[in-house]
Amino acid sequence: MFRSHTCGELRNSHINKKVTLSGWVQKTRDKGFMIWVDLRDRYGITQLIFDEERSSKALMEQAKTLGREFVVQITGTVIERTSKNPNLPTGDIEILVSELIVLNKALTPPFTIEDDTDGGEELRMKYRYLDIRRNPVKNNLIFRHKVTQLVRNYLSSEGFIEVETPYLIKSTPEGARDFVVPSRMNEGQFYALPQSPQTFKQLLMIAGLDKYFQIVKCFRDEDLRADRQPEFTQIDCEMAFVEQEDILNAFEGLTRHLLKEVKSVEVDEFPRMTFDEAMQRYGNDKPDIRFGMEFGELNEVAQHKEFNVFNKAELVVGIAVPEGNSYSRKDIDKLTDWVKRPQVGALGMVYVRCNEDGTYKSSVDKFYDQNDLAKWAEATNAKVGDLICVLSGETNKVRTQLSALRMELANRLGLRNPNEFAPLWIVDFPLLEWDEETERYHAMHHPFTSPKPGQLELLKTNPEDVKANAYDLVLNGNEIGGGSIRIHDKKTQALMFDYLGFTPEEAKAQFGFLMNAFEYGAPPHGGLAFGLDRLVAILGGQETIRDFIAFPKNNSGRDVMIDAPSPIDDAQLEELGLKLNLKS
Amino acid sequence: MFRSHTCGELRNSHINKKVTLSGWVQKTRDKGFMIWVDLRDRYGITQLIFDEERSSKALMEQAKTLGREFVVQITGTVIERTSKNPNLPTGDIEILVSELIVLNKALTPPFTIEDDTDGGEELRMKYRYLDIRRNPVKNNLIFRHKVTQLVRNYLSSEGFIEVETPYLIKSTPEGARDFVVPSRMNEGQFYALPQSPQTFKQLLMIAGLDKYFQIVKCFRDEDLRADRQPEFTQIDCEMAFVEQEDILNAFEGLTRHLLKEVKSVEVDEFPRMTFDEAMQRYGNDKPDIRFGMEFGELNEVAQHKEFNVFNKAELVVGIAVPEGNSYSRKDIDKLTDWVKRPQVGALGMVYVRCNEDGTYKSSVDKFYDQNDLAKWAEATNAKVGDLICVLSGETNKVRTQLSALRMELANRLGLRNPNEFAPLWIVDFPLLEWDEETERYHAMHHPFTSPKPGQLELLKTNPEDVKANAYDLVLNGNEIGGGSIRIHDKKTQALMFDYLGFTPEEAKAQFGFLMNAFEYGAPPHGGLAFGLDRLVAILGGQETIRDFIAFPKNNSGRDVMIDAPSPIDDAQLEELGLKLNLKS
Repeated sequence: MFRSHTCGELRNSHINKKVTLSGWVQKTRDKGFMIWVDLRDRYGITQLIFDEERSSKALMEQAKTLGREFVVQITGTVIERTSKNPNLPTGDIEILVSELIVLNKALTPPFTIEDDTDGGEELRMKYRYLDIRRNPVKNNLIFRHKVTQLVRNYLSSEGFIEVETPYLIKSTPEGARDFVVPSRMNEGQFYALPQSPQTFKQLLMIAGLDKYFQIVKCFRDEDLRADRQPEFTQIDCEMAFVEQEDILNAFEGLTRHLLKEVKSVEVDEFPRMTFDEAMQRYGNDKPDIRFGMEFGELNEVAQHKEFNVFNKAELVVGIAVPEGNSYSRKDIDKLTDWVKRPQVGALGMVYVRCNEDGTYKSSVDKFYDQNDLAKWAEATNAKVGDLICVLSGETNKVRTQLSALRMELANRLGLRNPNEFAPLWIVDFPLLEWDEETERYHAMHHPFTSPKPGQLELLKTNPEDVKANAYDLVLNGNEIGGGSIRIHDKKTQALMFDYLGFTPEEAKAQFGFLMNAFEYGAPPHGGLAFGLDRLVAILGGQETIRDFIAFPKNNSGRDVMIDAPSPIDDAQLEELGLKLNLKS
Repeated sequence: MFRSHTCGELRNSHINKKVTLSGWVQKTRDKGFMIWVDLRDRYGITQLIFDEERSSKALMEQAKTLGREFVVQITGTVIERTSKNPNLPTGDIEILVSELIVLNKALTPPFTIEDDTDGGEELRMKYRYLDIRRNPVKNNLIFRHKVTQLVRNYLSSEGFIEVETPYLIKSTPEGARDFVVPSRMNEGQFYALPQSPQTFKQLLMIAGLDKYFQIVKCFRDEDLRADRQPEFTQIDCEMAFVEQEDILNAFEGLTRHLLKEVKSVEVDEFPRMTFDEAMQRYGNDKPDIRFGMEFGELNEVAQHKEFNVFNKAELVVGIAVPEGNSYSRKDIDKLTDWVKRPQVGALGMVYVRCNEDGTYKSSVDKFYDQNDLAKWAEATNAKVGDLICVLSGETNKVRTQLSALRMELANRLGLRNPNEFAPLWIVDFPLLEWDEETERYHAMHHPFTSPKPGQLELLKTNPEDVKANAYDLVLNGNEIGGGSIRIHDKKTQALMFDYLGFTPEEAKAQFGFLMNAFEYGAPPHGGLAFGLDRLVAILGGQETIRDFIAFPKNNSGRDVMIDAPSPIDDAQLEELGLKLNLKS
């Protein structure tokens, strides 16, 4: 037996008990005649004491050899501390050690195992097993476990069945790139790793399982942007015999349950907003509604003068920055530079100061009078002391730019309180979106999403106007989930594939099994998937998903700890019927 | 809203209520003036009624068009049935339909959607979404969900943390073949899919997580034997600061909990048996102990006469078949043929009839007298009326052969009661096993398993005698779990790799990250993994794991429903830096 108690549980009530503990040496203080050791395990820290008067000489000598992160087992007696530590749950007691066994030595760790470590990102990833010993990382993983348990128990209690769908499936060129897996037993053929269990969950609905969920790894071979992972985890859900309303209610229930259980936050009914409204009011389909700075469209009150920049713009739109009039001219110049960075891409920024005396001072006073500017202030809901920032240009672009500015300012102004939770449904997404690169329409959600009733006809004439039965759940400016009501008949699905540029042969080769299944009694169905990594990060009050993944990959898709991916030997390649064909 | 109730919930108390149901047409009975429809969903079956007197003509006409597996929505009034069906929970009532909407038509299914279907295995796999509509398959999946929920909640309540380990890891040649995944972003390099999260769970112990579990998919690219799957699910567990005893107790607790919750079976302490004893008593390291027929070794009482077959055998061993004396000569000849089949491989079989009058009649009466045979009966624990079957030859082979015979006879005699549960720990496994093909020792469990204390020295001189801190959990003749105490210091691990034929360079390239981690304070640790698919099947009273997997693959590793694996296009291959190099 390695321990009678953990390092987190001993209290006053244990005084005089003989106990055995095991753990890591967090730190030692050696006063010569007295040595204290902080012993750490998952559950906490307990102070050990060795002293000349009460400990044998051999034991003192042994204690002096202990280094940081040594793994030791001790036996001793719980005694009251002379100087208590109120910051430590075990701070009332210490252990007078009578026996010490070094279970394993340790090299000096490459960074300190403290809440605030001196280790850089790269080093901490390489020694992730040491990084996880640190409380912040360890607690994130425990938090993740807690959230997933809550999700599973909630959904189970609501009658959902968790079904494991296969990981070795079929490659489909739609959407992101698949990771593929060569099959040795079927030479020249490949499995693909699922980007999501989409088709399988639909088949489970056709199979009559009625309510399905799965917490499942998904894979996308994308060029990694910051904080994207090639493998990520979804809470994947599907329901049969449902309309959009049923799904929104079901998963609003789950989200409300999570907020209550892990954050003690009670949220009433979640607000809903159409995609169009979100774009108009926030320039963003995942708006953070914890703060204002809503968009004020200014075309009507800004395109009647000689200012050509505005006159030729498709959209002139502004936001009021609370108390922004305190910004110096230099501050505002910097803000202008910020929106002109290539990452944002605005051509310039017009501003209006809302002075304390009720007058306005703008960067376009040459063109607009106080009356004009008062109207701008009204449209942007600007108060005395605010600063109005105005951008103009092509509607979609300018909205994205102003949304970026709004979020940046909110961060700077501390308006994004991580302990406040503002969920929001975005509904009525467009069915299709134009892809600049391939110059054709893509399914905005995925090709199985059903158009709004009666809008199928529009596909031919005004494809961009067709709305879908698709919805996203947004929390604090992050999309945490999204889904749709699916197409459940073969004819509509074939039509969709056609519009998306699949030949009938391609559609059949890739999704024939699903379209066949539609012919054998497919019920109306729909679902939703949460991104677990992000959900957990946001509930944890953070936004970096990597901090909530035990062994994440870096931005090149590498695991720097195990050094993967790596070359495989020629025999293995040959067995798979492959050879390398390197471009460089 | 598609339904007010499910098809499984309406009772007498609902009579006169107006309800809306949705589901599949299980069957229709059309008497002309009256039509009954059984409407089915996941939750049950409800009878619908249409009749000339109470239903409109249009509705009658519409009801007549319904075919099997049509998806319909109905509204109607709950009424009392004139002829009740006590076999159906909803059998007291039926619905007098007032409105019928066909939500989707269905082609005639290729096999009947009944508990006993007329569909063959292949057809049912191709249309798995229809197969799952059948109660036996559907209930298996729901049962699996229930078991996994119980496992997760039990382990969580015991302080285990579920941690997701990566799926895209590093290929290692040890053990079975890896499935590999070419990396597009790291050309010429490959990830591997995990055969188990073994090294990651050890790293989590080094990381201080103390108690880990994960229900996780694992992958092995093996030539598939019957009822093996290339992807399978493990309940993977690991604990730090434990000895073998702690682990056996922890997972005995889990197994006892499952048996109680899902089978209402209370089992006291699980018996334990060493590997050597299991081999001697049952010829098998996963013995079914629900019945007797234990091995009786006969060398001492059978090698003293002129019967050379026995005299030159390393082992002479027999079992007593209960009431086997009732077998005719022809039956026994057939049994002899059975053990001589190449799948079993015995050269012959000696038998002894235990007559009612206390005498013996054997196939070797030429060599042995009544006194000899009485000793055989004693050794095999044979009773009057039994038949003793005796095999001889090389110890390991003959044990395997007699074990096969024992299991076959038990199946024939109905001794393997699926509602009886007999768990058993097998402990003290050998560390190594000889591999005939490669002519070297392999790790029997895996190369991270620690030898018994003090036995490391034996590795050089008597490697086959070294026992490991390794254990299996056996249930009803099936291995449902297995694990070991791990090596936790770099020196021992390096030594093990050396004995297993790794060069230091190979060991470093493949497992360097783990051996490095051992140097930074690795605690003693060990664990266990359950095969979830098999565990669920056995708890469900069956032995075919495929019946408990939603979308299994066939024996060629193919998913015949989605037709995977399949070729991918040249552009995709080129992007991965690969080209085909087919052998045929």
